[in-house]
Amino acid sequence: MKIAKPIALLIEAFEKLPGVGPKTAQRLAFYLLHVPNSQLQEFAEALSDLKKNTKLCSVCKNVGEEDPCLICSDKARDRSIILVVEQPLDLIAFEKIGRYKGLYHCLHGSISPLDNIGPDELYVDDLIRRVKDKALKEIIIATNPTMEGEATAMYLVKKIKGENSKVKVTRLGMGIPTGADLEYADEVTLTRAIEGRREI
Amino acid sequence: MKIAKPIALLIEAFEKLPGVGPKTAQRLAFYLLHVPNSQLQEFAEALSDLKKNTKLCSVCKNVGEEDPCLICSDKARDRSIILVVEQPLDLIAFEKIGRYKGLYHCLHGSISPLDNIGPDELYVDDLIRRVKDKALKEIIIATNPTMEGEATAMYLVKKIKGENSKVKVTRLGMGIPTGADLEYADEVTLTRAIEGRREI
Repeated sequence: MKIAKPIALLIEAFEKLPGVGPKTAQRLAFYLLHVPNSQLQEFAEALSDLKKNTKLCSVCKNVGEEDPCLICSDKARDRSIILVVEQPLDLIAFEKIGRYKGLYHCLHGSISPLDNIGPDELYVDDLIRRVKDKALKEIIIATNPTMEGEATAMYLVKKIKGENSKVKVTRLGMGIPTGADLEYADEVTLTRAIEGRREI
Repeated sequence: MKIAKPIALLIEAFEKLPGVGPKTAQRLAFYLLHVPNSQLQEFAEALSDLKKNTKLCSVCKNVGEEDPCLICSDKARDRSIILVVEQPLDLIAFEKIGRYKGLYHCLHGSISPLDNIGPDELYVDDLIRRVKDKALKEIIIATNPTMEGEATAMYLVKKIKGENSKVKVTRLGMGIPTGADLEYADEVTLTRAIEGRREI
């Protein structure tokens, strides 16, 4: 006996999500058979409206409901500084702490030759266009501290400096995360913590 | 800054799934921003069609596309034996091995007083109605070997015997699973393996 077609289709859809294997997909699909139909319809609507009701900000490439987004159109924010992140989720992490008052730029990925992602697949050109702004003083590169994130940072520094040599380019501070155990820190993290030491 | 409404709605929908926490839900929703719109629409359709295009078999309560389901309407199957499972997924596990040729009955859960699930919330009455059939020779109870599954099995035996004392009621064989290490088997499993020993 085969699994009924409507269920099989849903299992297939779940399997396409990252981190969801065939067993989890099956479990989720069969779970949904037991939920009220209204919940199913809400879920379906949320999915089909996802792209319809969201816009990519033409300035910072963040995903939001308006264009330009609420941050880019906020007059109170410091327009002389741009923080560059890989994903919209990274931007939200910074906004949650609420200490950063500048603008953002969202690359939507990092340079990864193994996955065939070069600078052209990211919103790098849009960033370089923003760099030409004379009022701009600093760009903070906050890509992830991974191989791909570091490569992207390197590439961006070179590109930004080539376009506007007066702008200051900084990278997020690297070192021991708060609450970590020094004993278990890896070599690279320790080396960076020493390099990044500050007078107190 | 808040997450855009359409994304927040989708995160909420994902969070309602079992085993999906707030972080996973966020990751899945933002991942879906990057997939082609056609894939999103297929996913949404699979969800909204799930209940529309599936039927509960009026005989065995399995979920399928027809009523009665393909198994119940299959003339080649042995109608003198019913295997009782908790969930449609359990039924599929038995069908995959293809050795069982009788009918099924799907309870859609197990008796669990802590979750307020009693026999009335399951398809027990439908099973008892089937038990009255004179042609029926055996009922195999294949609920899970958990507290709830065992309690359900106990309850079913009493109910079935009260309705039709001639029908044989059996429980799945319990013991060491194939490939397991005796050393790590728990006490209950070992006790049941001794109780369930067979001459070779």
